[in-house]
Amino acid sequence: MPYRLSELAARFELERRGDTDPEIAGVGTLAGASGDQLGFLANPRYRSQLADTAAAAIVLGADDAEHCPVSCLIARDPYAAFARIAALFEPRAALQPGIHASASIASDAIVSPDAQVGAFVSIGARSRVEAGAFVGPGCVIGDDCIVGGDSELIARVTLVTRVRLGRRVRVHPGAVLGADGFGLAMQDGHWLKVPQLGGVVVGDDCEIGANTCIDRGAIEDTVLGEDVRLDNLVQIGHNVIVGAHTAMAGCAAVAGSARIGRYCLIGGGTGIVGHIEICDKVLVTAMTLVTHSIQSPGEYSSGTPVQPSRDWRRNAARFKHLDALARKIGALPQAKD
Amino acid sequence: MPYRLSELAARFELERRGDTDPEIAGVGTLAGASGDQLGFLANPRYRSQLADTAAAAIVLGADDAEHCPVSCLIARDPYAAFARIAALFEPRAALQPGIHASASIASDAIVSPDAQVGAFVSIGARSRVEAGAFVGPGCVIGDDCIVGGDSELIARVTLVTRVRLGRRVRVHPGAVLGADGFGLAMQDGHWLKVPQLGGVVVGDDCEIGANTCIDRGAIEDTVLGEDVRLDNLVQIGHNVIVGAHTAMAGCAAVAGSARIGRYCLIGGGTGIVGHIEICDKVLVTAMTLVTHSIQSPGEYSSGTPVQPSRDWRRNAARFKHLDALARKIGALPQAKD
Amino acid sequence: MPYRLSELAARFELERRGDTDPEIAGVGTLAGASGDQLGFLANPRYRSQLADTAAAAIVLGADDAEHCPVSCLIARDPYAAFARIAALFEPRAALQPGIHASASIASDAIVSPDAQVGAFVSIGARSRVEAGAFVGPGCVIGDDCIVGGDSELIARVTLVTRVRLGRRVRVHPGAVLGADGFGLAMQDGHWLKVPQLGGVVVGDDCEIGANTCIDRGAIEDTVLGEDVRLDNLVQIGHNVIVGAHTAMAGCAAVAGSARIGRYCLIGGGTGIVGHIEICDKVLVTAMTLVTHSIQSPGEYSSGTPVQPSRDWRRNAARFKHLDALARKIGALPQAKD
Repeated sequence: MPYRLSELAARFELERRGDTDPEIAGVGTLAGASGDQLGFLANPRYRSQLADTAAAAIVLGADDAEHCPVSCLIARDPYAAFARIAALFEPRAALQPGIHASASIASDAIVSPDAQVGAFVSIGARSRVEAGAFVGPGCVIGDDCIVGGDSELIARVTLVTRVRLGRRVRVHPGAVLGADGFGLAMQDGHWLKVPQLGGVVVGDDCEIGANTCIDRGAIEDTVLGEDVRLDNLVQIGHNVIVGAHTAMAGCAAVAGSARIGRYCLIGGGTGIVGHIEICDKVLVTAMTLVTHSIQSPGEYSSGTPVQPSRDWRRNAARFKHLDALARKIGALPQAKD
Repeated sequence: MPYRLSELAARFELERRGDTDPEIAGVGTLAGASGDQLGFLANPRYRSQLADTAAAAIVLGADDAEHCPVSCLIARDPYAAFARIAALFEPRAALQPGIHASASIASDAIVSPDAQVGAFVSIGARSRVEAGAFVGPGCVIGDDCIVGGDSELIARVTLVTRVRLGRRVRVHPGAVLGADGFGLAMQDGHWLKVPQLGGVVVGDDCEIGANTCIDRGAIEDTVLGEDVRLDNLVQIGHNVIVGAHTAMAGCAAVAGSARIGRYCLIGGGTGIVGHIEICDKVLVTAMTLVTHSIQSPGEYSSGTPVQPSRDWRRNAARFKHLDALARKIGALPQAKD
Repeated sequence: MPYRLSELAARFELERRGDTDPEIAGVGTLAGASGDQLGFLANPRYRSQLADTAAAAIVLGADDAEHCPVSCLIARDPYAAFARIAALFEPRAALQPGIHASASIASDAIVSPDAQVGAFVSIGARSRVEAGAFVGPGCVIGDDCIVGGDSELIARVTLVTRVRLGRRVRVHPGAVLGADGFGLAMQDGHWLKVPQLGGVVVGDDCEIGANTCIDRGAIEDTVLGEDVRLDNLVQIGHNVIVGAHTAMAGCAAVAGSARIGRYCLIGGGTGIVGHIEICDKVLVTAMTLVTHSIQSPGEYSSGTPVQPSRDWRRNAARFKHLDALARKIGALPQAKD
């Protein structure tokens, strides 16, 4: 299990600097690593911790190398390099193909003999679990679903109906994919439920966080492109389309039929209203509400800054009359444009 | 399964226009429908797609009929008409009364012989599942609960304790009804838990979204009137009362003991603080924070508009001093009222 | 089961006033209590209900005693006193030690003979359930977890991996502890997953709400101090540290590596960005976004007040140009400081 630093340098094609070639038995933070661990410096906030690190060696950028008190590996992107090295030290149980005795599987469902299905799993009619897939304990897979090859449903995931996952998709506990979209029409004073006839399509290499919800489409499908990454407690409404490589942080929510581009970064708690389009490479900061389409790449925000509540209350009270204030200023002779 | 357009017109009492009486085998969007499907035009955003539709026929309002390139059905509310027609094409598994062999049911619980209880379901003491109800795989029903006639717990729903669902209630996966309300009192530097002795009452025809939480009351019950519709990831605190026919979009949250009227529409991500009252027919736009009671029907909002972050930062910095700015203006001789 | 008011006064060391010594069979609200129940007055909003209460007796503060139409118990903190009394009337099923026949438990997991494990529970390798603990139906406990003595996982809780709960921890249904943190590095246009090698440590007496998520750390652990109280649908990112006795209301979210102090009160829907520090005794009002560290105890807010949307739209439009407005004012000769 331990690796020489020189082995790591060779395996990950990183330049090694320093006089020692320590044995590395694990990874750690700059502040917490012990003398047989590899630390890393990627976020400049932590640069001041470099001098006192007890780590055996550090992964860092070339600019920081001269200040490194121990041996180091130089990486253009130290965070990515660290991620690849850390994976060597991740304890992972090997897949144990087979179906747990307690699982309840529809007679016309197909489970690959090379897949693993855990305890208390239900699989519905016409669904398919492909080779190398892992369906953890307590998962419920409804009718007409596909779990693509090498995908992992960690535990207690629900695929309701017509959910098709690509390959290497990872879904965390409590996530619900393919529930009814929220489609309602008011008729004679009562809500009428609009049937949700579509499904959910999730591209290869997507990751879906714990307790995240992705509703199935009303007519056509809700679609995640490849390599989309959703954090926990995210809400994706029916018929939303999320472009490849887009990442959304915790508690973000997208209303029905919105389209989000590729390589977008959506901050935590952000809301995106329905039926709008966001182009590629848009970054939205945390807790912003996006109420209209965005046609230019770039960074977008809404809200007001946090303040002591006493100050905030005074300012907030003025906001309620901001238009009147602006009109008053406009009426001043000196203020006219 | 296919229906003539004239059959649909007769069954749903809609006027049919156009020379052809095509066979309809399914439903689709304006842009996506194929030549044997019925499309619809309800949202004016999509009006421009009408000319090029490949659908066999369209449901739309009278005003749009003259621009329709194919046969059509005229509806006062095309969305509601479409919803009713689409239901004809929804594949629904028939209820299969009986209790799955794996289910774990308390000896004094009562399950109607006309109800269906799925795999890995637990049902606690003194609980009752009525005729026509469906309790899907992985549901946990605690003590003293009622699942009313023809209600559906899709899968992995939890009713913790003292939860009484009316008839035709539909609850989506991961929803938790009847967990302890968040009642705490600080005593000698430690939190003291306030017992949550109430329950949850859900009226007929309600729908509860995936991973939505409705806490049970501290003393009296938390109550949803009939036909209340909650989207996914909604939080309803203890002793909240939600009036009949109110709908709340995803990630909305209502704190303890708030009362919400009938026919309200609560936008996604909206927060409603505790112990306030909102009257009937209030619409709250997305991500608004409602901090005081609302006595007049109408539409309410808070927040600021999304902007490029560079512009937003300048404006947000000014907000921190808005009161000072307003005072400065008030001090100008020309600005006095 | 019923208690004389004088017994309650003695047991909880409260002063009793009034001529009668009624028998108390339960607890109720001021407005809803019946003639054999004890009511309470803690929130001044409800003071006007005191005169008409039908309760047998009331718990209240000394200042309200003279207006009380029935016998009363005087408490310095009526809400805390009521909480302790109400606990006498809470129906609680006694722990029934033993393991349900359906449970699936790894051969090297250890379950105390004094613990109760319910139906359809999975417990993974090297995990331990200590004496007096309750693991309710449908829970999934992964590898290397500890459920401390007298802790309660109500139902359908997931502890993914390396989650260590202290004593008397209560976790509500749907909560997911120890899922992968959201760690991603972009490499050659694809996301690279950063291994999440840490765990989650939860102190004694914590409470975790329904469908709340606490991710495990990337390298070191995510940590909750003792007596931390999290409401439903809360999101705690990887490597967050929450100080003892802090409470967070529903839908609050804390991004990775943030540190929150002791005795903080975090309002519902609040967001806290990553890598910042909040000191002890900070109160953050609902739906605030905290974007920088807070070094002084006190109350903090952001956002704008709710208004009728017509007014709000005018003000919000002005916010988009607030900086320009402020510059215009600054340019007025009379407005210069």
